[in-house]
Amino acid sequence: MIKIGLLGLGTVGTGVYQLISENRNDLKALIGEEVEISKILVNNVSKIREVELEKGILTLNPYEILDDPTINIIVEVIGGVTDAYTYIKYALNNGKHVVTANKAVIAKHMKELTSLSKTSNSALLYEASVGGGIPIIKPLRQYKNMSQVDEIKGIINGTSNFILSKMIDESMSFDESLSLAQSLGYAEADPTDDVEGYDTARKLAILSSIAFNNSINDDSIYSRGISSISKGDIDNFKEMGFTVKLLGKAIKRANQIAASVEPVLIKEKSMLAGVNGAFNLIALNGAPLGELQFYGQGAGKFPTAGAVLSDILDIITCAYPKEICDNNDLATNTTSCQLSGRYYIRINLLGEVTDEEALKYIDENLIDTKINSSKGELTLLTKETTPNEIQKFEKSLNKYVEGCFYARIDE
Amino acid sequence: MIKIGLLGLGTVGTGVYQLISENRNDLKALIGEEVEISKILVNNVSKIREVELEKGILTLNPYEILDDPTINIIVEVIGGVTDAYTYIKYALNNGKHVVTANKAVIAKHMKELTSLSKTSNSALLYEASVGGGIPIIKPLRQYKNMSQVDEIKGIINGTSNFILSKMIDESMSFDESLSLAQSLGYAEADPTDDVEGYDTARKLAILSSIAFNNSINDDSIYSRGISSISKGDIDNFKEMGFTVKLLGKAIKRANQIAASVEPVLIKEKSMLAGVNGAFNLIALNGAPLGELQFYGQGAGKFPTAGAVLSDILDIITCAYPKEICDNNDLATNTTSCQLSGRYYIRINLLGEVTDEEALKYIDENLIDTKINSSKGELTLLTKETTPNEIQKFEKSLNKYVEGCFYARIDE
Repeated sequence: MIKIGLLGLGTVGTGVYQLISENRNDLKALIGEEVEISKILVNNVSKIREVELEKGILTLNPYEILDDPTINIIVEVIGGVTDAYTYIKYALNNGKHVVTANKAVIAKHMKELTSLSKTSNSALLYEASVGGGIPIIKPLRQYKNMSQVDEIKGIINGTSNFILSKMIDESMSFDESLSLAQSLGYAEADPTDDVEGYDTARKLAILSSIAFNNSINDDSIYSRGISSISKGDIDNFKEMGFTVKLLGKAIKRANQIAASVEPVLIKEKSMLAGVNGAFNLIALNGAPLGELQFYGQGAGKFPTAGAVLSDILDIITCAYPKEICDNNDLATNTTSCQLSGRYYIRINLLGEVTDEEALKYIDENLIDTKINSSKGELTLLTKETTPNEIQKFEKSLNKYVEGCFYARIDE
Repeated sequence: MIKIGLLGLGTVGTGVYQLISENRNDLKALIGEEVEISKILVNNVSKIREVELEKGILTLNPYEILDDPTINIIVEVIGGVTDAYTYIKYALNNGKHVVTANKAVIAKHMKELTSLSKTSNSALLYEASVGGGIPIIKPLRQYKNMSQVDEIKGIINGTSNFILSKMIDESMSFDESLSLAQSLGYAEADPTDDVEGYDTARKLAILSSIAFNNSINDDSIYSRGISSISKGDIDNFKEMGFTVKLLGKAIKRANQIAASVEPVLIKEKSMLAGVNGAFNLIALNGAPLGELQFYGQGAGKFPTAGAVLSDILDIITCAYPKEICDNNDLATNTTSCQLSGRYYIRINLLGEVTDEEALKYIDENLIDTKINSSKGELTLLTKETTPNEIQKFEKSLNKYVEGCFYARIDE
């Protein structure tokens, strides 16, 4: 009998419990032993649950699970950083294997926890932390054993992608679309992490740390969100044959890593443009293996629980890449720089710009194509530049600017 | 030192040799041991090769490799069925692990070879046999450990997809596009297997045998190719907002499996429509895990060699799912039935149809929308039907029919 300790019984935890208990016989046939969740950490033992539970299986005390010598595998799905970090560390130190779906804790403490899992000879697997039900962590490790990874990019935040899909397909405003996402349970009451790109940055930090053998902190990734996209911007994108996506992208050239999370204009006929609603797509590229893309449900109870169960099965059947993990000696923390590219900029002006120097700068350094410069709005496509340069320019126009939005063109 | 015997030194074999010899140090760091290809089976030892080889490494005698006690892993990349089947069987009987990229031999002998690999306790891995560089066999096995698989579909023949892309994007005829593909090395002198769907049927047979725990023979899969698509058809598709792809699709409902390889009309805005040129896309769907798609280079030296190397690494690090493979007890051969759906039909007529009965049948049973019925051509969209029914109808009009093409609408 293989006993699993489950930390957390929210949506994903309940999904894991259901997948394991409902597939009990199949799992036994598969691995030759019974698998059960024998203890579950919750905040409230008397809350009514969606699943029927054995009496006494719930506990308020994490150490009743973490110190249980009959439990070999810990599944952490409580979310948040502080407690999760404490429990994962304790479990690894105690020689237990750990599976987690927690991107925040992995993005923050990957290097330390990976190294701890090695010294304690325990597995630390986190397939569910990026892309929900999409297998990406394991394929990425395999890919980089056979090829350089030159580029990772992805639509990895379902909430913002849902909002953008509604803005594009149904001409909703950002606020209308956000409200709808909240009412459907796709967005949280405080949507900051999702719509401002922080969630995407965490996932990109995990992927690029693995891909580039580096410890890339999510705080060091330049992130800009989608909340200031206007209906007019969407119309402009359509007219130019583009759609807009919140894209996380990291590239490695020589020893430099550039990574950004930004709204990005994508040609309407490309694969990335076809990723709608709450779906995710992650693309890897490198020499000599070439391009690979993975697409699926980036969140949701069963897809995410499925990724957790896949890690559990890998541990039970020893099918996780033990030795291969060992080359994942992350280098010291790396600060990524911004990606450069041509940008779409829309500026709402308070009045006519009379600053000669600013106008000269725009003409000489920034403008590639002017789209619109009437009715207090200046919209243009730039030459190759970076967000830093655009911010400098925006600052130089500071006293005239009422609002501003810019997005890189994916070329 | 881990010694590998390589059967075949064509494009993929050369790629495998290069990946292993060029990554020698990285592989050693990764797995703690040196890996080398110690013997290679070829047809001609004096042929000039693209890679520099140690003297005496080439042999004309397969048994010098298959009986070598120092060789533990056999990589079969000679292609064809007869010899490959003989060597793989011999190797497994000899207790050696086998990695193959050969879809023909796996489609034909999967059940027997899988069962032999179990009794001899050796791995038989064939990630490269479907989708070239796209990881699909392993993810599919993992998926089905956690979910039902209800549907598999894919664009899994790069040659026909390249030809269709040229017909659609550059208004080439089928013949022009085929000639271009042949001159670029994307199509063989005899393109039958690729353009008539037989190659796709082999790959679909492998995928659906795994997904549905069944031995599905490629001969039992209904296949129809792309060679009779006309420029006029392409124009019609565009006008209706569709593109056309050669799609392999298998579904399971209750205990029935329906599988077909057919030209299929796909909405221009979907992900499948974005798969162009020599790329492949494979989609899995099932409850409760939902949809997953994998996209990448479906052929080519390094993508395919990379998939072979990934299998080799899984064997060396024991990271292939040993126990999990055991549940892959394929049921007895299953004959699949055709998929039903609405169809686009274009018939070139020799003269006016005067057969009252045939006309009545068309009106009452077949036609949903008439697109064109002038100039000796009858083009229509049908109600839900099957290729069998369409063939019956075509036969009933036999004396009037000069040419005919039909394609299912993917809905």
